[in-house]
Amino acid sequence: MKVGYLGPHGTFSEQAVLKISNIQEIMAFPTIWEVINSVETGKTGKCVVPIENSTEGCINVTVDSMIFDTNLYIQSQINLPIEQNIMVKEGTDINKITKIYSHPQGLAQCRLFLQKNYPEAELIATNSTADGGKIVKNSDEPCAAIGLLRVSEIYGLKILHKSIQDNNKNFTIFSVLSKNDTSKELNNKKTSIAFSTDNSPGMLCKILSLFDVWDINMTKIISRPFRNKSEEYVFFADLESNGSANDMKNCLDMVSRKTSFFKNLGSYAVYDYR
Amino acid sequence: MKVGYLGPHGTFSEQAVLKISNIQEIMAFPTIWEVINSVETGKTGKCVVPIENSTEGCINVTVDSMIFDTNLYIQSQINLPIEQNIMVKEGTDINKITKIYSHPQGLAQCRLFLQKNYPEAELIATNSTADGGKIVKNSDEPCAAIGLLRVSEIYGLKILHKSIQDNNKNFTIFSVLSKNDTSKELNNKKTSIAFSTDNSPGMLCKILSLFDVWDINMTKIISRPFRNKSEEYVFFADLESNGSANDMKNCLDMVSRKTSFFKNLGSYAVYDYR
Repeated sequence: MKVGYLGPHGTFSEQAVLKISNIQEIMAFPTIWEVINSVETGKTGKCVVPIENSTEGCINVTVDSMIFDTNLYIQSQINLPIEQNIMVKEGTDINKITKIYSHPQGLAQCRLFLQKNYPEAELIATNSTADGGKIVKNSDEPCAAIGLLRVSEIYGLKILHKSIQDNNKNFTIFSVLSKNDTSKELNNKKTSIAFSTDNSPGMLCKILSLFDVWDINMTKIISRPFRNKSEEYVFFADLESNGSANDMKNCLDMVSRKTSFFKNLGSYAVYDYR
Repeated sequence: MKVGYLGPHGTFSEQAVLKISNIQEIMAFPTIWEVINSVETGKTGKCVVPIENSTEGCINVTVDSMIFDTNLYIQSQINLPIEQNIMVKEGTDINKITKIYSHPQGLAQCRLFLQKNYPEAELIATNSTADGGKIVKNSDEPCAAIGLLRVSEIYGLKILHKSIQDNNKNFTIFSVLSKNDTSKELNNKKTSIAFSTDNSPGMLCKILSLFDVWDINMTKIISRPFRNKSEEYVFFADLESNGSANDMKNCLDMVSRKTSFFKNLGSYAVYDYR
């Protein structure tokens, strides 16, 4: 099965996609929207997209595509820590490094480390962390790249220091999406839904009380403007339950009955690599 | 009064900061956390920080700093459309442009425009869109930069095409923060609060019913993990009311009484430049 992801080669999304078993081929797309659309149009069988970053927040383009554009289900969730590494070509004199290449986000994430360890080095932006690795591989000067482990694997570079990002608790949540509803599988932990009520706090309240009835915990809720309907909102919520799959089904049937818009986005297992 | 913002010179945040009247001096900081902290420590009197992007979502680092790290109030909200422009040095032969410089995000936001109009040009990453402008200003080759209007002003470049971003509805919400609670000013439109209940949907429900009592609309709610307390959540909510400031005060007094954690983040006016 082909699996779509946010490219290019060497990205953090690629690192996430390689955590999935039984992959025949991976296929890079330039935007999240195109990644998701590749499943909808059958170019790929599933895809991996970032849905939330612990620092930067929920990725609205992913959430909105799932709510408004497609009818895909979440198959699983992958939590990956963001680990940046500094890498060089074998044989580089590490005391002579004068240029360090990375995507501006990679450079920004390691600002304190770079200030302390390479205060004199010139920091040069690249289009992706993988591009930085490629430049270092082809350079004859003593230089380094900052990127994910995957970049060092692709370009055969040696890691000088591991995990050099300033914030050690930064991680990204990826969702694996496909057309199949896997809600009935046994190791499911989490359920995601989207729903809309009329615009009074009282109506939202009524829905939340249904979760209480079936002893279901809501572990996340975010409101999003309803596309093309100003003043209306959709809620995206994550639910967890220790009860039976049947309880969840009965609860969601009732939520569906009492809302003006309802979408079950799937029940799924969570793989946490932090 | 000094006003802090997310630098460097020429950023989108700088464009937002210049919308504020009565500024004596603006001061750039390298991270959102340092921008906010500059007000807390008195280095600046107020600051401007991005709090939500229409595509990428709520900026958790801003929200979390406001909830957990500081005691600042929102003074006003500024909504700015994200407009990218392609610019050149006066006298450039526009049929010979072979290199286009910008931050990877600037290049990505204009991907379709570039594919259509400059399919042969080499796209070169820079650390900021302002850096791209600087390179073009100093270059003798026929090249262009992509960036905000502000970049063309800083480097005296000529705009070739305005508003070339692929998505015309993309905008960012900025918050102006300071130590002063301006809740009593007359043109206030919105109120933001943070609160925590015990972890049952029923408790959240109880709080939402209070908004109903005082006819207050909740226009946004997002849940955030309570820092250092796993399994607990804080809610960040935006409220709007047609009623009196006194109604809002009475409602929030009651919310405060019924929650385990409560923070009034200010009532403020909204300036919408879309």
